[in-house]
Amino acid sequence: MTRKPLILVSNDDGVQAKGLKILARALKGLGRVIVVAPDQQRSACSHSITLHLPLRINKLAKDIYSVSGTPTDCIMLALNEILDEKPDLIVSGINHGPNIGDDVHYSGTVSAAYEGGIEGIPSIAMSLLFKNGKHFKSAAEFAKRVSKKVLKEGLPRGVILNVNVPDLPEKEILGYKITKQGKRNYGDIIVDKVDPKGRKYYWIGGDQNGFEDIPSSDCNAVREDYISITPLRVDITDKPTLKKLSSWNI
Amino acid sequence: MTRKPLILVSNDDGVQAKGLKILARALKGLGRVIVVAPDQQRSACSHSITLHLPLRINKLAKDIYSVSGTPTDCIMLALNEILDEKPDLIVSGINHGPNIGDDVHYSGTVSAAYEGGIEGIPSIAMSLLFKNGKHFKSAAEFAKRVSKKVLKEGLPRGVILNVNVPDLPEKEILGYKITKQGKRNYGDIIVDKVDPKGRKYYWIGGDQNGFEDIPSSDCNAVREDYISITPLRVDITDKPTLKKLSSWNI
Repeated sequence: MTRKPLILVSNDDGVQAKGLKILARALKGLGRVIVVAPDQQRSACSHSITLHLPLRINKLAKDIYSVSGTPTDCIMLALNEILDEKPDLIVSGINHGPNIGDDVHYSGTVSAAYEGGIEGIPSIAMSLLFKNGKHFKSAAEFAKRVSKKVLKEGLPRGVILNVNVPDLPEKEILGYKITKQGKRNYGDIIVDKVDPKGRKYYWIGGDQNGFEDIPSSDCNAVREDYISITPLRVDITDKPTLKKLSSWNI
Repeated sequence: MTRKPLILVSNDDGVQAKGLKILARALKGLGRVIVVAPDQQRSACSHSITLHLPLRINKLAKDIYSVSGTPTDCIMLALNEILDEKPDLIVSGINHGPNIGDDVHYSGTVSAAYEGGIEGIPSIAMSLLFKNGKHFKSAAEFAKRVSKKVLKEGLPRGVILNVNVPDLPEKEILGYKITKQGKRNYGDIIVDKVDPKGRKYYWIGGDQNGFEDIPSSDCNAVREDYISITPLRVDITDKPTLKKLSSWNI
């Protein structure tokens, strides 16, 4: 008897997030799904690890666990403590909002998939653009299709997929494009205000200013109502610069 | 009159860290140095941004500021609020411990430099291996040399340098090597214990198990008592996989 694939699901919006629940449900047709996700919202926590505090694991239901840490903590604890065997696939998401362009460096959802990539496990990050957050179903259906393909074909070692889905009904999405990482313009991202005691404070997360127009980029694809699939690499050495630097005399 | 270069210095070990102070002092010969660093230790915080809390900036002395956030927060606030002009160079460190192989994804020190790379500013991450943390001076001297060269030559847009220095007196370091990102073996990284109430907890940061033997890698260079310089890229698209995926029918 062929063993059912083991699929680990995580996210950065937390174990109670709508996107996570819809994703886990959609993947159940493909194998055994185990959820290990943060106990609270952890957006923009990137690839951070909790080193200065102990972590707790809570079993919430059969095959559903929360961890008092970051998405990377979740994957580390899942692989080392919770699961008895290596998963065949890790899917992170569905993120409540896009992860395109430079977002990939800040995103906890992408980092959970990245941690899988570091461990040599085929991994996918799924994000839904967020006009009004209505169309998780479109992202979940595509998550199932792309997961099925990755379970069959595998991925090159050290490469993960970053998938972004427009917030549209399935029939209004024009298809998918294989893309490269684009570049967002973050604009005037810092808001500064004064607190009740008259002291200044700053809050990150102001305006976003669209993105650079780069053909074949993730940003362009989603703007044109296509799903974007970008392969991202764990080895981030810039090969062309290796040669340039070797002629430097430092 | 030629304007003096403006150099922004940050780290993830916090504004009081020895490595930061030695670095800032060493770079003063090259231009005006402004320090903007976290108010406390933020190791392994990766590229996280504080979105859920307001941030404070404290001016501690002339050209020295602390921020109640992560290294990425520091760079964002420095560029958008503290500095009047774009810096010519960002140097992050000197990290108390190596950032080699997959470390680059977890490190706050590397991420501060990365944020510079995202903003198109030549940026360098400096780390000292940590046998006993005695030889910050070796790293500071090399930081000065490599910074001088980068100020003169620039770096390709979207590329940063990740520099790791062995914890040895300068005369025992054999030179420097231009390297690619290697791969560490993290081994059995989770410690599990029981608290006074009998509940289990987990702590990340157990054994490190050496690294894979990869010629020309950062890990190999520092093991052989060389300084390692690795160019890292902001665009982490895996180009070879783009082609492979376009033949998939998802």
